[in-house]
Amino acid sequence: MVHHISDEAADEPGITTQTPSNDPSQAPLVYKVGYPPPKNLATEFTETLRETFFHDNPLRQYKGQSGPRRFMMGLEFLFPIFGWVRDYSLSKFKGDLIAGLTIASLCIPQDIGYSKLANLDPQYGLYSSFIPPLIYAAMGSSRDIAIGPVAVVSLLIGSLLQAEVDHVKNKEEYMRLAFTATFFAGITQAALGFLRLGFLIEFLSHAAIVGFMGGAAITIALQQLKYVLGIANFTRKTDIVSVMESVWRSVHHGWNWQTIVIGVSFLVFLLFAKYIGKKNRKLFWVPAIAPIISVILATFFVYITRADKQGVQIVKHIEQGINPSSVHKIYFTGPFVAKGFKIGVVCGIVGLTEAVAIGRTFAAMKDYQLDGNKEMVALGTMNIVGSMTSCYVTTGSFSRSAVNFMAGCKTPVSNVVMSVVVLLTLLVITPLFKYTPNAILGSIIISAVIGLVDYEAAILIWKVDKLDFIACMGAFFGVVFVSVEIGLLIAVAISFAKILLQVTRPRTALLGNLPGTTIYRNISQYPEAKLTPGVVIVRVDSAIYFSNSNYVRERILRWLTDEEDRAKALGLPKISSLIVEMSPVIDIDTSGIHALEDLYKNLQKRDMQLILSNPGSVVIEKLQASKLTEHIGSSHIFLAVSDAVRFCTTKSMQEP
Amino acid sequence: MVHHISDEAADEPGITTQTPSNDPSQAPLVYKVGYPPPKNLATEFTETLRETFFHDNPLRQYKGQSGPRRFMMGLEFLFPIFGWVRDYSLSKFKGDLIAGLTIASLCIPQDIGYSKLANLDPQYGLYSSFIPPLIYAAMGSSRDIAIGPVAVVSLLIGSLLQAEVDHVKNKEEYMRLAFTATFFAGITQAALGFLRLGFLIEFLSHAAIVGFMGGAAITIALQQLKYVLGIANFTRKTDIVSVMESVWRSVHHGWNWQTIVIGVSFLVFLLFAKYIGKKNRKLFWVPAIAPIISVILATFFVYITRADKQGVQIVKHIEQGINPSSVHKIYFTGPFVAKGFKIGVVCGIVGLTEAVAIGRTFAAMKDYQLDGNKEMVALGTMNIVGSMTSCYVTTGSFSRSAVNFMAGCKTPVSNVVMSVVVLLTLLVITPLFKYTPNAILGSIIISAVIGLVDYEAAILIWKVDKLDFIACMGAFFGVVFVSVEIGLLIAVAISFAKILLQVTRPRTALLGNLPGTTIYRNISQYPEAKLTPGVVIVRVDSAIYFSNSNYVRERILRWLTDEEDRAKALGLPKISSLIVEMSPVIDIDTSGIHALEDLYKNLQKRDMQLILSNPGSVVIEKLQASKLTEHIGSSHIFLAVSDAVRFCTTKSMQEP
Repeated sequence: MVHHISDEAADEPGITTQTPSNDPSQAPLVYKVGYPPPKNLATEFTETLRETFFHDNPLRQYKGQSGPRRFMMGLEFLFPIFGWVRDYSLSKFKGDLIAGLTIASLCIPQDIGYSKLANLDPQYGLYSSFIPPLIYAAMGSSRDIAIGPVAVVSLLIGSLLQAEVDHVKNKEEYMRLAFTATFFAGITQAALGFLRLGFLIEFLSHAAIVGFMGGAAITIALQQLKYVLGIANFTRKTDIVSVMESVWRSVHHGWNWQTIVIGVSFLVFLLFAKYIGKKNRKLFWVPAIAPIISVILATFFVYITRADKQGVQIVKHIEQGINPSSVHKIYFTGPFVAKGFKIGVVCGIVGLTEAVAIGRTFAAMKDYQLDGNKEMVALGTMNIVGSMTSCYVTTGSFSRSAVNFMAGCKTPVSNVVMSVVVLLTLLVITPLFKYTPNAILGSIIISAVIGLVDYEAAILIWKVDKLDFIACMGAFFGVVFVSVEIGLLIAVAISFAKILLQVTRPRTALLGNLPGTTIYRNISQYPEAKLTPGVVIVRVDSAIYFSNSNYVRERILRWLTDEEDRAKALGLPKISSLIVEMSPVIDIDTSGIHALEDLYKNLQKRDMQLILSNPGSVVIEKLQASKLTEHIGSSHIFLAVSDAVRFCTTKSMQEP
Repeated sequence: MVHHISDEAADEPGITTQTPSNDPSQAPLVYKVGYPPPKNLATEFTETLRETFFHDNPLRQYKGQSGPRRFMMGLEFLFPIFGWVRDYSLSKFKGDLIAGLTIASLCIPQDIGYSKLANLDPQYGLYSSFIPPLIYAAMGSSRDIAIGPVAVVSLLIGSLLQAEVDHVKNKEEYMRLAFTATFFAGITQAALGFLRLGFLIEFLSHAAIVGFMGGAAITIALQQLKYVLGIANFTRKTDIVSVMESVWRSVHHGWNWQTIVIGVSFLVFLLFAKYIGKKNRKLFWVPAIAPIISVILATFFVYITRADKQGVQIVKHIEQGINPSSVHKIYFTGPFVAKGFKIGVVCGIVGLTEAVAIGRTFAAMKDYQLDGNKEMVALGTMNIVGSMTSCYVTTGSFSRSAVNFMAGCKTPVSNVVMSVVVLLTLLVITPLFKYTPNAILGSIIISAVIGLVDYEAAILIWKVDKLDFIACMGAFFGVVFVSVEIGLLIAVAISFAKILLQVTRPRTALLGNLPGTTIYRNISQYPEAKLTPGVVIVRVDSAIYFSNSNYVRERILRWLTDEEDRAKALGLPKISSLIVEMSPVIDIDTSGIHALEDLYKNLQKRDMQLILSNPGSVVIEKLQASKLTEHIGSSHIFLAVSDAVRFCTTKSMQEP
């Protein structure tokens, strides 16, 4: 690990030898640990608040602007459309038009299928692709996201609603609860954004989301077996065991071969189209238009052969016309309010997680900034308005957003184009879907969700962090073997447990000197580092808080005991000082200070000196406020480990 | 802040100039960032497990011991009594006897009062001071703790039970639920210890406990007004508003002046005794025996004056005889199991928190080690056995443990002495308590709990950490103005919120060079530190996890933007490199790696170089596993900031 250099760097690593020339005595400098300038309570409070909720400094651009200009900027902040519409050009529209038409052709069959996942009539899927995208186009700041119903949220809301109300027996109540949940999903999203609490969704770890999404995709695909195999009596449960049992039980008298022929042959076609699109990224439009082509072909085929009379299930009826109002259907009183609220919060947060992840991904690709909190307000408003216009929870769709991006969308106008196509569909061509076989919708959904099983991400997670991988698998198997809710719960629980574990069991390390330098590093990372005889140097790798203060104290004492044993065994000098390197200790609270005090007393009894190295500004401030600096002695607090070591070794040489 | 030294340290601070003499070329050394030796999965897993659950290395002492010796040591581990009983001597017994008698005289009146707080008949308090201390004496490892019913847990269990069953209307059910809750409290405690999950109680922060205890003490004292003022119709609520209303409403016709005379005069006596004990620590026995003296005096006084006929409420009847079995009273089936479980978990954890805090305090004073997990198993077993012998939840008492310590206890034998005295009381003298006025018990409890209001701790918390103070006050006012449960909930919620906040919003700092050294420090802590032109050095003060990865990325970019603006304004050279000092970044997960990757891509677009300084062993391992080191380039990862800065400045000088 050690190599020599002789070219550009002439002086020692980590060392400069000049002393400032304006120093008359030419003696070397020793810096004492700095105390930050005192702040009063109000300043401190304001700063904490700003760093917590306004770290992106959103008002920065308003500084030094005139009144009307500020108003315009505020308007633009809420409605980014006022910003980009000024520079809008025909060439941009060309890109948006093509992208919009492509995602429209993809979304129409998906919407019909997803509404079935949510146990709703097919027109509600289409309604949800008409109004919400228009709202988002005015308020959203992502240029690439494609808005509409998505598979995972549809499955989730369907499964949560079904647990409260049966969608067959109490259809009207089920619908009303769906709109209530959508309303509260919107309220949740808008509130999180408005209160700048958007960071809360970051408590769902990436790994947990990968597992949850993969599990949901498998569950959704399994649900489609009902349509692809033409099974009439299908279980309402979503776990893999019930579904496979249901499939197996009906193998002799429940499967419909005509349905299977349609379903399987088009599934092969769709997957092949997907493969082509993946092989050659210029042919991305092949998988994008394959679904609508399949629908047209299959519908035509069923219509001429009248296969529906052979037991092939068809869509039958989609209500014609645009979204009716559903304001009066939302429950604002009664026992369903609490239920709708609960379901809404869960669906809203899952929807948010998906939309924000998509938005961030594409924003990073095109290098523009995305304000998470603003995005949440847009998504929330969109769902609130949606709940009043017969839509259910919508968000950004992974598959359609990717198509949108590749088709060359420039602004949210592509969503408007899609919305207009859906409007025309609702007004004119819904009757044509009468003979569309359910099997083709099943195939389309299977081919769509299969991309959500991100096994490459899972492999990377395995390589990087084993605990993350457990979270990922926990969420995955929870969804697949139990239910979507349980999977989500496992994902959240493991994510939290990981945070708590990190906070309770911080790392500590024994430091040694890299020979020839004044650098002290973890001896397990740098085996060439040498321990200093008579001194134990321990680095604490975390803030010392109530949740870990006892552990930190005990762990430091264990390092000390281990080193004492080693020194005794090897006949090395007795250990006289313990240096605690505090560079990574970014904060400390009252419990942490108690722990340090206990450590100090314990060492005193053993006739050892406690020495602190490089406490940060917050830490030194609190040590002083609690008078611990006086106990330990300011002269035992150093700015660097090397200074502390020199102090210890010099002292021990002076002693007899 | 800079001062000169001329005595012992001759060389520069943080600098040594020797190069190893075994180096033939005499060229200086450059260390590369170390990669820790690869570990296989099993080793890694075992190590993580050990650090998380067995950080105290409990099997260490068994190494190299023979079989029978190991068995004995295992027995001693479970029953520490086998350890200390061998060295037990008469002189130790003398200390334990005096201490035991003192705490017995203190516990008898307290027990009777506390059982009233729990809405139980007075004998149950005495039962709880007989069996549990015996179990603890055999299994516990604290030498100073005094076991028995305590005020806060009695109030808590009383208030939680009353919410489920009324103690007047359904006395039998109430009793049975109390034993069920006690049983589950014991199970919870033993399970936490056995599964080595004891660290979970550390999620209740010190500040929250101070607030909760203070609030509970005020609430308990207010409850005693019922007895001290002799009010017959008293509210069952515990919040200060209801209680004061109740007191005020009965001022004209509900107060009993004879009761007030007894209550207030003895309260003054007790508080004066406490004052004496505080003034002169040798007279600690004065406040310790004052309660029993008061009880004797007051009982005698009521007996001769027959004041009970004037409306002075008396204890009336305490069941004579030892604990009856209550195994058959514990609910193992039915709806009360879940309720008992819930109450048991809450009371068990609060009891545990109190006992462990006491145990740790006194262990630190006498300098012996206390194994938290073992302690929990002992407390749990004690409560399980207690629930079967008519005891309710017991734990270590703050006030009695302090008396025990000051009276010179040496081993848990003082608990045995106390237990024997309580046994004799139960067998022989309970009839004598018939005429004991309730007012005197109220006075004793007020004078006991007043010590729980630890305003000095609250002041220190205010000085050290404002957020901690909010947690403290939240818990305090929650208990005082709403209820014990709400106060506890607030305490837990704020404690968790604090952890989450710490994890989501880590600190970042801009580093500058301390002139004349190679040390780089936070410029806001060390105003003398100089920024390096053309280079921005940012230190991230936390692990980079999913919960903060986006924040960290955005915050680093904001530092960069700010510095770019400053450089432009001052006409300084353009910024060409960003150095991220990663010493405090002790861990990273997949989300964190994504954030660094995004940062790298973003900087590439701005034509800047991303440079990492001193990543720790875990971090460098994960960076490599995810191939990020290849993107950034190993030559852009340095062991120290100074090396990185030299690299940047040399490079910029070579460029045109």
